[in-house]
Amino acid sequence: MDSGTGSVGVVTPQVIRFNSPLKLSSGASIDGYSLMIEAYGKLNVDHTNAVLICHALNASHHVAGVHAEDPSVPGWWDNMVGPGKPVDTDRFFVVGVNNLGSCFGSTGPMSLDPASGRPYGASFPVVTVEDWVNAQVRLADMLGIKRWAAVMGGSLGGMQALSWTIQYPERIAHCVAIASAPKLSAQNIAFNEVARTAIRSDPDFHGGDYYAHATVPKRGLRVARMIGHITYLSGEDMAEKFGRAMREADYQFHYEIEFEVERYLRYQGDKFSEYFDANTYLLITRALDYFDPAKELGGDLVAALAPARAKFLIGAFTTDWRFPPARSREIVEALIDNGLDVVYAEIDAPHGHDAFLLDDFRYHRVVRAYFDNIAQTL
Amino acid sequence: MDSGTGSVGVVTPQVIRFNSPLKLSSGASIDGYSLMIEAYGKLNVDHTNAVLICHALNASHHVAGVHAEDPSVPGWWDNMVGPGKPVDTDRFFVVGVNNLGSCFGSTGPMSLDPASGRPYGASFPVVTVEDWVNAQVRLADMLGIKRWAAVMGGSLGGMQALSWTIQYPERIAHCVAIASAPKLSAQNIAFNEVARTAIRSDPDFHGGDYYAHATVPKRGLRVARMIGHITYLSGEDMAEKFGRAMREADYQFHYEIEFEVERYLRYQGDKFSEYFDANTYLLITRALDYFDPAKELGGDLVAALAPARAKFLIGAFTTDWRFPPARSREIVEALIDNGLDVVYAEIDAPHGHDAFLLDDFRYHRVVRAYFDNIAQTL
Repeated sequence: MDSGTGSVGVVTPQVIRFNSPLKLSSGASIDGYSLMIEAYGKLNVDHTNAVLICHALNASHHVAGVHAEDPSVPGWWDNMVGPGKPVDTDRFFVVGVNNLGSCFGSTGPMSLDPASGRPYGASFPVVTVEDWVNAQVRLADMLGIKRWAAVMGGSLGGMQALSWTIQYPERIAHCVAIASAPKLSAQNIAFNEVARTAIRSDPDFHGGDYYAHATVPKRGLRVARMIGHITYLSGEDMAEKFGRAMREADYQFHYEIEFEVERYLRYQGDKFSEYFDANTYLLITRALDYFDPAKELGGDLVAALAPARAKFLIGAFTTDWRFPPARSREIVEALIDNGLDVVYAEIDAPHGHDAFLLDDFRYHRVVRAYFDNIAQTL
Repeated sequence: MDSGTGSVGVVTPQVIRFNSPLKLSSGASIDGYSLMIEAYGKLNVDHTNAVLICHALNASHHVAGVHAEDPSVPGWWDNMVGPGKPVDTDRFFVVGVNNLGSCFGSTGPMSLDPASGRPYGASFPVVTVEDWVNAQVRLADMLGIKRWAAVMGGSLGGMQALSWTIQYPERIAHCVAIASAPKLSAQNIAFNEVARTAIRSDPDFHGGDYYAHATVPKRGLRVARMIGHITYLSGEDMAEKFGRAMREADYQFHYEIEFEVERYLRYQGDKFSEYFDANTYLLITRALDYFDPAKELGGDLVAALAPARAKFLIGAFTTDWRFPPARSREIVEALIDNGLDVVYAEIDAPHGHDAFLLDDFRYHRVVRAYFDNIAQTL
């Protein structure tokens, strides 16, 4: 294992409130909002060692360490962030943030709409990656961070890091985008659409106002998560983990669990449907669909990235079929065409898209080396 | 276009009734059953020119030509089967059959159970590829066909053709299996399981007895079909057909149709949910999951194919990620290890799994040449 074994220990999330209105890409605006955050390590005197970690679909501000009330559940990138780890909290001040519209304490569809006194539900505005970055900039202002040493994320988190370099080029020194893409493919959008259809057609969804009906569209969420899981794992990984392993030696000739892969998917789907908000699932998958920084530039990614001034680490995994290496290479090529500094790591790893969350030796070595170099410039 | 333009014209399906019980792989048996069939061309005097076409998940006996009441809808393999076409009905007597458990006229979950006088529904037995072949053998007996010149199918249809060579080696001269596999992968099973979960968790499913409730689990069927469709097309094909093309020039910031690929999937899902039976969907995907002729032989496909005496055409498409060429090569290698004659065609085609249904020049040329050779032996 490359990663150190240090943990940031017990951490306490904080709610940060922003009271001025935030104009959104859609034209709507939200009067005020809260962001749930966590922070690890110490901000240095010059405020130059801050790292922002952006999450993907279903994660949160809880990046590292544990919560006192739930000591067995480490943050989602605990193998990456901590003392002695690739993103070393002995050297960096690391901030995790739950995005606007998510369901882990930041303002989102489950929150009370001050105008009505009831949950926003279906009336919560559709937000974009750009909106998230605009919300995060205010967090940086509040924390006194003029410029992030790095903004980092995997998958959708990488898209936010990328968007920082375009929207706020002076406020990000390094962009670390792992297993990401410059925009979704038709197939990516298709998977999102099926997941949304499963949720929206669940009778318990009630057009997004299920809070008022005291229901949860669990059936739809379960199917959405099962579909997602298939796309997070590589076919090779699934073959290795489950193959055709069965619950019983012989076929039972029914539609209950026969194969271990069925048990795994049902378990993942059930677990997810217990804690994730269905409206947030719609909102975040739509933000994914919409991300396309070159859209207003006739698809010219080189032009889209022209404002960027950051240095880049772009990483991709060979067996990731959700955002395959070719998608990362599109970003790399556009960065090079802009004369920007870019390190590209294409990592031979069997675990598909989920590899960005896993403690892979070669992957972590690359990230560690990259952050070591950043640390030397502080 | 390689294929001839001849059509078999207006065709009339026939119901064939079998009154003796059929023992199934599950141990259950069915007292009697009907198979809906179509036939094209003329059986020769020696009965040596008969070709059986086996269907995949959602197709039927209606392989070629048109029905008088629906003249705009040709059979599902009309580009392959007809006068002057690769499977030439001027030379071959071609039979299409709807499988036991399907919903196009053969006995299945929608049929009345003579024991109860009500539709079988959830009580219809789970059937296997082997059961289908056993049911098809009786059809051959009834038609006076001692030995098929060829049994042919794509995908799950190819599995039936393969199973014929193992179960009834003396009754099949040629096996033509296109875009098929010797068994499903974990990922294949996973996609089936998500589709089944969508159907089974639809409140209108009523545990499979929705006929009695006068409901149809359309929401579940729609999601199942949307998932299926993604796996039938290649990512490249989707990119080419839809890319990120939008309904409006600008984002509308909602969850209705924004992208053309969403429109396409919804359309396919809606259409399917209007005509396909949900219990049949479960039954056929389960038959897919269960197909594994090497299961009782410790996974040894060479041993599983040892009984085979047929000659083989195995075809696969480069962009098929559901049953990629590697899966067909497993079959080819096991056939070669058995000293059997096999032609293998790996066809560079952009259309993914669905390519087996399409009029691709190189693909059709291979099939035509193969059947030309068969014709010369008659």
